[in-house]
Amino acid sequence: MASRLLPPALEKVIEELGRLPGVGARTAERYAYFLLKSDQHLSTKLAAAIDKLHSSVKTCPVTFALIDSSDDVSPLYADSSRNKRLVAVVEEPLDIIAIERTGQYHGTYHVLGGAISPIDNIGPEQLHIPELLKRLESDNVEEVIIATNASVEGESTALYLQRQISSTDLDIKLSRLARGIPVGVDLEYADQITLTHALEGRRTL
Amino acid sequence: MASRLLPPALEKVIEELGRLPGVGARTAERYAYFLLKSDQHLSTKLAAAIDKLHSSVKTCPVTFALIDSSDDVSPLYADSSRNKRLVAVVEEPLDIIAIERTGQYHGTYHVLGGAISPIDNIGPEQLHIPELLKRLESDNVEEVIIATNASVEGESTALYLQRQISSTDLDIKLSRLARGIPVGVDLEYADQITLTHALEGRRTL
Repeated sequence: MASRLLPPALEKVIEELGRLPGVGARTAERYAYFLLKSDQHLSTKLAAAIDKLHSSVKTCPVTFALIDSSDDVSPLYADSSRNKRLVAVVEEPLDIIAIERTGQYHGTYHVLGGAISPIDNIGPEQLHIPELLKRLESDNVEEVIIATNASVEGESTALYLQRQISSTDLDIKLSRLARGIPVGVDLEYADQITLTHALEGRRTL
Repeated sequence: MASRLLPPALEKVIEELGRLPGVGARTAERYAYFLLKSDQHLSTKLAAAIDKLHSSVKTCPVTFALIDSSDDVSPLYADSSRNKRLVAVVEEPLDIIAIERTGQYHGTYHVLGGAISPIDNIGPEQLHIPELLKRLESDNVEEVIIATNASVEGESTALYLQRQISSTDLDIKLSRLARGIPVGVDLEYADQITLTHALEGRRTL
């Protein structure tokens, strides 16, 4: 007969934590044991925060960024100091944070909610592309920066968007984030495709 | 002025998840966003599990393993098929799981609750050593396997235990887990100390 190895309540926490992305059994055990060793306050606060996550957060109906459920639209979009005629199109809401961290961008955002991926059954119709096209007109958008990921899916999505936007009779400047050698990376370690992009996109000095 | 980048409820979850060991801001963001994208059920179940963790789990008063708060002693210790005269001494409760996974051990355990570490202000008096010495007598223990970690702290603790147990007038066989090359590791990648241990502990064929 096998003895019960862990108390059921601890096993339950390990099982639930193990559903998080990239968290295996060992990591889940480490997290759960850390919570158990720490002050009970930590667990109480974490549980309370997770518990009200869904009810307190919704999606902005214009930009599809994540917003507080009491807000009408994204505070960033509502901010009059942001240029509504410049739109950066990103795949996921967290991509916004990455761009905002640069402190160099003063336009607004549009979250697609993913990228075109036939393998995962995600076609253009699953993404917030119609809403983007509508917004280009209603906000008199002058420039769209396509900031999808540097993956196959991100590239297909960028190409699709480019075609869609070009086929409208709006006069919109389209751009794409630059590809190249990341800061701090030695040339010899850069992969072929990145290096090809870096060559193509070379800047005259 | 800075716009609020994320809804406060999401920021709170990211902040709380960021307290888990080894979880930085990016990982916490990824976990939180995963929860938000998944069905609300997942968050509810995770929150409920974490919330009742502390109240449902306690420490066994004999072995110091983690047990259900409704149990008196560890079910493994209470199991009559386990040899109480053989005790494996481990640092942390989760070490028990690692040894149990081998399926090769049929004795009982004693959790020290850490290892001697002057830097962290942990001396022998912070560990469950007196309880172990008492148990050696009350359970008529014949063999103690010192299964502390292969770290400096684990080694110091093993040495201290060895001295303490030898200084009693009990006739107890003492052993330590073998050091050597882990399965699947090439000799050329083994570090010097491990290799030294492997040479010292070589087995005659």
